[in-house]
Amino acid sequence: MEKQLFDISDLQPKTLSTQVELDRRSPVPLYHQLKEILRSQIENGNWKSGDIIPNENLIASDYGLSRGTVREAMDDLVREGLLTRQRGRGTFVAAPKLEQGILSLYSVHEYTKQTGHIPGSQILEFVTEQANKKVKEHLQLSANSEIYKLVRTRLVDGEPIMYDRVYIPASDFPGLSEKDISNVSLYEILSRDYGVVLGKAHQYFEPVLIDQYESQLLKVDKGSPALLIERVTNRMNGTPVVYSKIIIRGDRCRFFAEIPNR
Amino acid sequence: MEKQLFDISDLQPKTLSTQVELDRRSPVPLYHQLKEILRSQIENGNWKSGDIIPNENLIASDYGLSRGTVREAMDDLVREGLLTRQRGRGTFVAAPKLEQGILSLYSVHEYTKQTGHIPGSQILEFVTEQANKKVKEHLQLSANSEIYKLVRTRLVDGEPIMYDRVYIPASDFPGLSEKDISNVSLYEILSRDYGVVLGKAHQYFEPVLIDQYESQLLKVDKGSPALLIERVTNRMNGTPVVYSKIIIRGDRCRFFAEIPNR
Repeated sequence: MEKQLFDISDLQPKTLSTQVELDRRSPVPLYHQLKEILRSQIENGNWKSGDIIPNENLIASDYGLSRGTVREAMDDLVREGLLTRQRGRGTFVAAPKLEQGILSLYSVHEYTKQTGHIPGSQILEFVTEQANKKVKEHLQLSANSEIYKLVRTRLVDGEPIMYDRVYIPASDFPGLSEKDISNVSLYEILSRDYGVVLGKAHQYFEPVLIDQYESQLLKVDKGSPALLIERVTNRMNGTPVVYSKIIIRGDRCRFFAEIPNR
Repeated sequence: MEKQLFDISDLQPKTLSTQVELDRRSPVPLYHQLKEILRSQIENGNWKSGDIIPNENLIASDYGLSRGTVREAMDDLVREGLLTRQRGRGTFVAAPKLEQGILSLYSVHEYTKQTGHIPGSQILEFVTEQANKKVKEHLQLSANSEIYKLVRTRLVDGEPIMYDRVYIPASDFPGLSEKDISNVSLYEILSRDYGVVLGKAHQYFEPVLIDQYESQLLKVDKGSPALLIERVTNRMNGTPVVYSKIIIRGDRCRFFAEIPNR
């Protein structure tokens, strides 16, 4: 979670516009209604990133709710990354999520630079090993083929946002080293140093939960929402060249796609 | 979760191919390694939907792990929807996820039919009301505009898969009734009965967690992974006509997109 850098004494807690009322006869539970009201305050721009929000007791008394109900709504919003709690200081509106086109996810390094942020990565593992069955299938490799396995976290402005596992046929890229990929786009190296012409990629998306291990790498709670992307990138002639599995923090990222005229 | 309809006495628990070994010197924790091994068994097709899998004790002794470690790995896979537990019967491989093109999500009703499944929906709320600030912005409505608000769950073969909230300017669609939309695609009604020519749509995606209320509607545990889609659909001339917020169960759905040549 983001650290806020201002002094709490400067901050006036935001008030909650109570013009949106709870509907006590609705089948929708009150905590869920409150959650939508709080979410709207942020999405409408009434509350902005870094704002301290009213404490639970105040919201509870404004809306005539129990403190437990308010806490349940706020807990959900913290897990989704809209709010962030700071021990002894209060609850703040989180930094806005990074927005990415679902296609521009393709080159995180380039996209991060283009949008004025600083890309980075931390390599956790770079090894040559036998491909397992699944990797062999995705990369259409024969038995006993070796692959490079690259495991890394990707940083945006120093904050870990993604956890990547990348598999590349070793025989096609002799001499590829950890040093090569530590600060440049992998796709750029494949094309610049090895003459690979990239074609289509196929991507699967799934919402998943951050597990204990990933929570340490990405500095986010276990059970937080994330997007899992599985991607096979092909050469222009259609043969697969990179297989990757990417976990992206849902509390810090959202994705955009335009659906064309039908 | 799916109910399996066969008799447990017919079932031989699947064995676990232990050719993939744990790497005890790796920085990757053992439960996370085991999770990837179990996931591979399913993704490789060694274990199929409806198969009963070895119990925790057996896996623990095969791999020399504590039962707690095995349980942690299996818990994660249950939450992701790859495994399903049946009290007193064991743990089974879940039904495969429904796969949808990220663009074909657009018309769930049509897509469900085309892929040989039975679409359905349950309308929870259909009301005419004042648009709130956010809905007004998305639909570019003036002050005091009224909207239809449609809240429903969408079913595939009788199983609730999505939770939809849909907002439509009321003045453009006089006489639209709950009956009209109960068993036909909403987009089809707008075009067939009101002559709307649909243009582009803009979609945002975010991985989120199922909350207590949604868990009841979608019959899935609180805290399960889901995809939230926010969509504004425009007319051909670019004016917005439908704003919707859709929650889709991540344990039952995954999404596909092709990235074109770059």
